[in-house]
Amino acid sequence: MPRPLYVTRPLLPDLNDMHALLREVWDTRILTNGGPLHERLESELKSYLDVPTAMLFNNGTIALLAALKLLELPEGSEVITTPLTFAATAHAIHWNGLVPVFADVSPDTLTIEPESVRKAITAKTSAILGVHVYGTVCDLDGLQTIADEHGLQLIYDAAHAFGVTVHGKSIGLFGNASVFSLHATKLFNTAEGGLITTARAEDAKNLYFLRNFGIKNEDEVVSVGINGKMNELQAAMGLLNLPLVAEEKRVRSQLRERYQDFLKALPGIWLPPNQPGIFPSEQYFQICIDPVLFKRSRDDVYRSLQQKGIFSRKYFHPICTDFEPYRNYAIHSVRNVPHVEIVKSQVLCLPFHGGVTEDDIDDIRDEFCQ
Amino acid sequence: MPRPLYVTRPLLPDLNDMHALLREVWDTRILTNGGPLHERLESELKSYLDVPTAMLFNNGTIALLAALKLLELPEGSEVITTPLTFAATAHAIHWNGLVPVFADVSPDTLTIEPESVRKAITAKTSAILGVHVYGTVCDLDGLQTIADEHGLQLIYDAAHAFGVTVHGKSIGLFGNASVFSLHATKLFNTAEGGLITTARAEDAKNLYFLRNFGIKNEDEVVSVGINGKMNELQAAMGLLNLPLVAEEKRVRSQLRERYQDFLKALPGIWLPPNQPGIFPSEQYFQICIDPVLFKRSRDDVYRSLQQKGIFSRKYFHPICTDFEPYRNYAIHSVRNVPHVEIVKSQVLCLPFHGGVTEDDIDDIRDEFCQ
Repeated sequence: MPRPLYVTRPLLPDLNDMHALLREVWDTRILTNGGPLHERLESELKSYLDVPTAMLFNNGTIALLAALKLLELPEGSEVITTPLTFAATAHAIHWNGLVPVFADVSPDTLTIEPESVRKAITAKTSAILGVHVYGTVCDLDGLQTIADEHGLQLIYDAAHAFGVTVHGKSIGLFGNASVFSLHATKLFNTAEGGLITTARAEDAKNLYFLRNFGIKNEDEVVSVGINGKMNELQAAMGLLNLPLVAEEKRVRSQLRERYQDFLKALPGIWLPPNQPGIFPSEQYFQICIDPVLFKRSRDDVYRSLQQKGIFSRKYFHPICTDFEPYRNYAIHSVRNVPHVEIVKSQVLCLPFHGGVTEDDIDDIRDEFCQ
Repeated sequence: MPRPLYVTRPLLPDLNDMHALLREVWDTRILTNGGPLHERLESELKSYLDVPTAMLFNNGTIALLAALKLLELPEGSEVITTPLTFAATAHAIHWNGLVPVFADVSPDTLTIEPESVRKAITAKTSAILGVHVYGTVCDLDGLQTIADEHGLQLIYDAAHAFGVTVHGKSIGLFGNASVFSLHATKLFNTAEGGLITTARAEDAKNLYFLRNFGIKNEDEVVSVGINGKMNELQAAMGLLNLPLVAEEKRVRSQLRERYQDFLKALPGIWLPPNQPGIFPSEQYFQICIDPVLFKRSRDDVYRSLQQKGIFSRKYFHPICTDFEPYRNYAIHSVRNVPHVEIVKSQVLCLPFHGGVTEDDIDDIRDEFCQ
């Protein structure tokens, strides 16, 4: 039983396969700037995710910076997002010279709640940034309706939603753009990495410029781009990891059922929503622990697991409005007390990957079913 | 004679050494977030560059974003820089919510000219961003004097200046911070990579936070950080390339002498300055071609070399004020016509790396000494 046991464990290809692919890199001596492996991976991901535009980035955060830049939102305008997300979501808004505005989450899904988004709209609002947190899909119709009504752009942080489909349609086709993370903690990883997908083939050109300093050609720089380039070492990882994703998802899917089997009967345990028609990401297994009904707090369970060498994670606690830069930012909500303020002390992600053993599951079950 | 011949060629370690180091990564399964190889490389660079603070980044641009953020400059304030630089310099200012202001270059060095910087200062100026362009060292005393007189911060884009020392003192110790690029085109490369050095040990903590989303610990996010993390694949490259730098510099130093031997006698050819007391970077070999005196234009030489499969580069043409986002930005200068506006059509970087052969040198000599 290998401990410590973490919430995620990166997929790793066979090291000899990596060696063989790096030999190609060594032969060409092209290490970055859209090398052959990069081009191959980008093309494979376009097919895999079934999207007309898929642009690789060095990480998900820089991809999010570029995706927001693509929208050309007015300087200083407001972007409504959820506080129950990783810091990068709010930071990417800030780095674009925009103002993050927070709206409450839906109790059913813990994704941003359309009716609370309505409460957050002002004359300065320019966009909504939904987050498919834990891989749970946002209320796509609800958010698109509001965006349409108010003339807002709609963008998705899909860091957790790699490979999700909605009634057969790729999650990367909704809104104006979707941003995926290919970080080591993600189902599909390139060590560090990011990806932007959009439903419009014509976005590829501008994203290509933004990813590489706005350089159009040797004589023209057309936008305030950034260095978002994925190098060939990362691309090699990606090419070799992509074929491993299906088996890892199968294993995680079984693990999900095992967890649900013993958790579903417990009072005060909130389980991930069942979303009909949605082919899941299998990124995280998130639960909420109601301290009154379950008679133990999330933090108590967290610490007790830790003593067994099992490192669950309180994703995402603290929430963005607890961070020093966004402290005192309001959370707009249809409730007097935002749901996210309650749920932030209840969320817990359990170890969820192919390295979780029967013994691990037994120990986690014992923790909950004492 | 391997053609095409480019201006740079990345150092590459032995692939078997890479394999051995990646085995360590595969064993730990730590792919990023300050893994063991990252920590080792950061420590080696701290020694190598003889600086109290050396922080690795995923690339030089993101490092520059973070270094500017470290200075906590007032929102919307002005940062004076040179237009004769790569796009990333100006873009990094813009991404920080600051305004780039351009000052002319010195005819001797092509680095930013202190007396022209004085012309650019307003009540809104908060910092000077000098660029050691081509590895030529800025007028360090001149710029520091102005910074002191006006209470400005001083930061250096040292993308081209890896390993430079000034009378034995590391170039990374001047100003408030220096930012290096470890891109494939650079003398020392990690495929993509960046590095911030400062003279203050206490800066490491804040840069550590900025590099990783401002995360201080599991409970606190203290700044609007970014994802600037270098992954373990990049760090492996760095660990193996660093010992190769000395020999590559030796070869480049000889090549520099070879070029100078036949160029120095030619009318209208400006050569890189000899800077006493400075141990050079050997990053680029830059010349200027005066079309009147040399009786041929830079572009003519550029095209003619290209026809032989020799790809020189017009670094840095276009200059920043030619870019769409900064068009119509003034270039403050002590001259009526800024020197940079003349020199931008004259600068040319010749192939400068260990892969340049005798035959290549002959062909380039023939081009100039027809």
